[in-house]
Amino acid sequence: MEHTLSKSFKILENAHIDQPKGFTAGGIHAGLRKSKRDFGWLYSDVPANAAGVYTQNTFQAAPLDVTQQALKHSGQLQAVVVNSANANSYTGEQGYQDALEMQQLTAKKIGIDSSLVAVASTGVIGEMLPMDVIKGAIARIGESEAAVDFEHAILTTDTKTKHIAVEVEIDGKVITIAGAAKGSGMIHPNMATMLSFITTDANVETESLQQGLRQITDQSFNRITVDGDSSTNDMVLILANGMQNNETLHPQHPEWHQFMEAWQFVSRELAKMIAKDGEGATKLVEVSLEGARSEQEAAQMAKAVIGSSLVKTAIYGEDANWGRIISALGASGVAFDKQGLSLAIGSEQIIKEGQLLAFHEPNCVEELVKDTVHLFIGLTDGVEKATVWGCDLTYDYVQINASYRT
Amino acid sequence: MEHTLSKSFKILENAHIDQPKGFTAGGIHAGLRKSKRDFGWLYSDVPANAAGVYTQNTFQAAPLDVTQQALKHSGQLQAVVVNSANANSYTGEQGYQDALEMQQLTAKKIGIDSSLVAVASTGVIGEMLPMDVIKGAIARIGESEAAVDFEHAILTTDTKTKHIAVEVEIDGKVITIAGAAKGSGMIHPNMATMLSFITTDANVETESLQQGLRQITDQSFNRITVDGDSSTNDMVLILANGMQNNETLHPQHPEWHQFMEAWQFVSRELAKMIAKDGEGATKLVEVSLEGARSEQEAAQMAKAVIGSSLVKTAIYGEDANWGRIISALGASGVAFDKQGLSLAIGSEQIIKEGQLLAFHEPNCVEELVKDTVHLFIGLTDGVEKATVWGCDLTYDYVQINASYRT
Repeated sequence: MEHTLSKSFKILENAHIDQPKGFTAGGIHAGLRKSKRDFGWLYSDVPANAAGVYTQNTFQAAPLDVTQQALKHSGQLQAVVVNSANANSYTGEQGYQDALEMQQLTAKKIGIDSSLVAVASTGVIGEMLPMDVIKGAIARIGESEAAVDFEHAILTTDTKTKHIAVEVEIDGKVITIAGAAKGSGMIHPNMATMLSFITTDANVETESLQQGLRQITDQSFNRITVDGDSSTNDMVLILANGMQNNETLHPQHPEWHQFMEAWQFVSRELAKMIAKDGEGATKLVEVSLEGARSEQEAAQMAKAVIGSSLVKTAIYGEDANWGRIISALGASGVAFDKQGLSLAIGSEQIIKEGQLLAFHEPNCVEELVKDTVHLFIGLTDGVEKATVWGCDLTYDYVQINASYRT
Repeated sequence: MEHTLSKSFKILENAHIDQPKGFTAGGIHAGLRKSKRDFGWLYSDVPANAAGVYTQNTFQAAPLDVTQQALKHSGQLQAVVVNSANANSYTGEQGYQDALEMQQLTAKKIGIDSSLVAVASTGVIGEMLPMDVIKGAIARIGESEAAVDFEHAILTTDTKTKHIAVEVEIDGKVITIAGAAKGSGMIHPNMATMLSFITTDANVETESLQQGLRQITDQSFNRITVDGDSSTNDMVLILANGMQNNETLHPQHPEWHQFMEAWQFVSRELAKMIAKDGEGATKLVEVSLEGARSEQEAAQMAKAVIGSSLVKTAIYGEDANWGRIISALGASGVAFDKQGLSLAIGSEQIIKEGQLLAFHEPNCVEELVKDTVHLFIGLTDGVEKATVWGCDLTYDYVQINASYRT
C-alpha cells in the first residue's frame, strides 16, 4: 500500500542538499565540459550511515561497482564525488581502475578512509575518463562551498537543478532531510540516467536505511519515465549522519512512519522534478490508477500509459485523443475487467465503469493545456493503486537526442 | 530456428494483392475521409481456406470479433471489406452491431454467406462508425477493379501503399502468393495498428494455414516496431483459394518448406515496408542479433535496441552513439555474458567479444547515412538468432502524432 501523506513535515523554501546539519557541498568547472560546472562533491563532518540502490542495466558502470563495494565494507559513507560529461561506462578494467583512483584521491584529499567515499559519473558511454582533468578537479575539492554549485555540476541535459529539503520533528529533535538529483533523458522505471543524493542529519540504523531506500525508490524514482530507456549509471544514495542525536530510527520506532513520510516526499518531489524536466518536455504528466489487484500491477499499467509515445505526443499536441490511453492500457500486459474501466483527464470524466460518456472536447483541452496534466484511471479488479509521472514527447526531445554527442 | 532464405521463389515486379488467380480487389472514396480512398474490398471467385491472427490488446476492436467468429465457423473466407479513418474500437455493443451489419450487407451485395466475409477497420478509436457512409460504400462494391485502389483505401498515416507478390513452383503448378498491408504508427511486436492481407491461389489445409500464419507472423510482423504501441485493431489474414489445384499443402508435404519460404518472404517484405514507412521515419533500421540462448530471447534483445527512443534519435541524427545501443541491450531484461558482446554498425565493427575496438567515427557515419541502417549484435550464449526491423525517431513523428485528430 502507498502511504497517504498526512504531511507531518515542513517544506523549507530555497533549501539545498547541504541543509541537514554537518553536510557541505560544492562544485567546479573542471574542464570535462566546455564551460559549465562538471565536477561536484558532497561531504559530511562525520561518517554517515548510508544505503544505495543501483541500475538494473547489465552494463553497470564502473563508479557503481566502486560505490557498492565501499558501502558493503562498512555501511557508511562520508563523501560523494560526481563528474558529469563522461559516464565511465563500458570502459572495462581501465575504467574500474579510474573510478577506484577517483575514490582514493578524493579520500586522500579530504583525509578520510577511501571506503567512505562514493563515486558517481554521468554522461557519454564508452569513453575513458580523462584522469588528468579528474585529478586536477579533486585537488580543488573545497574550493566552493555552495551546494547550488554541486547541484549544477551533476547535470547533463537537464535544464534545471533539482533540490528540496524538509523538516520533521522526531523524538523531540528537528530532523532535516534534503536531496538533489539529476536526470533528463534515459529515464525509466528501473533506475534511469538518474543520480539522486539524499542527506539527513537523523540517526538511522543502516539496515533500516537500506530497506527504506528500496521501498521509497520503488514508489518514487522507479515511478517515472521519460523515454523508456534505463541507463548504466543510475544510482540513489542516502547519507544519514546522525548529527541531531535522535534515538536511532528503525521500523519499530514509534516515529519511523513520520520519518518515512518526509523521506518519501523528498524522493517523490525530486522524481517529479526529473520527469518534468524530461528532455524536451513542456508538461509533467501524472497518471493515477486505482482499483488494481496489486500495487505492482497498478504501477505497470500506469507506466504503460505514461510510456506510450502516442499518448505523450497527443498530450504535447493538447489533443484529447483518449483512445490512445485505453489502447496503451490494453497493451500493458496486465489483465483487467474492461467493463470496470473509468477514465478522466483532469476533472473531465470520459469513461465511467465501461460506459463512454458524452465527449466534452473543450473541457478536456482545458485540462491538457495545464503545466501538469493529470490522468485518472479507475478499475474494479481490486483496491490497490499507484501513481506514476512522465512528460510529453516533443520536437525538442528529438532535437536534443539526434545531436547529443555531435 | 529461423529459415535461411534459399529463394526458390521469384519476385514479381509491380504486382498487387490480386495477382493470385481468382482474386479481385478495389477501393473507393466513401466519405469517411476528406478526399482519399477510405473503403476497400477484396474477394475471391471461390471460398478460400483462411486463417487469422489478431491483436493481443485487451481492447480488441469490434471488427476483429466479427472476423474471428466468421473464421471459426468454417475456416473459410471469400471476401474482406476494410474501412480506414475510423477504427470501430471501444464502441461497445453498438460498434459490434455495426461491424456485423457491415459484414452482412457486404455478403448480401456480393451474394455469399456472411460467415465468408471478414471486416476490418483502422483509424480513430472511440467514435461510432457512420453507418450511412458505410452502407453507401457497400452498395458501390465492384465499382473499381484496381487492386491499387484497395491498397490505397486501407492506409491511414502511411505515405505509401505496401504490396508484393511472388511465384513459387509447387507440385508442378505455379503458385502465387501476394500481400498488401497498412501500418505506420502504433507499430509494435504484438500486432500493431497494422492490417495485412495475404492471398494465394495455392490449395492449403486450413489448420496448416493457421499454424503457418502464427509462425510466420512471429518472424515478420511481430518483429517490427515503430513506436512501442500496440493497437486495438491489428490483424493479419491469409486467404488460400486453391485455384491452382495443387495437391493440398500441409507440413508433411515435401514442398511445404518452399511454400513457407515464399510466404515468409512476402510477410517479411511487407513488415519491412511498414517499418520503413513508420510515422515520420527517414530510415529502415535492421537489427540482427546472433548467439542467444533462444530465438525468443534474441528477438527480445533486438527489439529492446530497435525500440529505444535514444537509439532511434541517434540514428536519425546519424550519430554513432553506440553507447545507447549497449545500454538498451543491457536493459532488455535478458541476461547474457557481457564478455561475449560484439557490435557492428553496418560493416564497421565497434566491439569484438567484449573488447572495444579503435573507434572509426567517419566509417560509422557512412553506415548511418544509408537508407537502411544495419546493426549487428553478437553474443556467445547460444546459437539462436533473430532479426527485427524499425525506424528512426524524427521531428515528423512528433508532428504527425501531436495533431493526428485535430
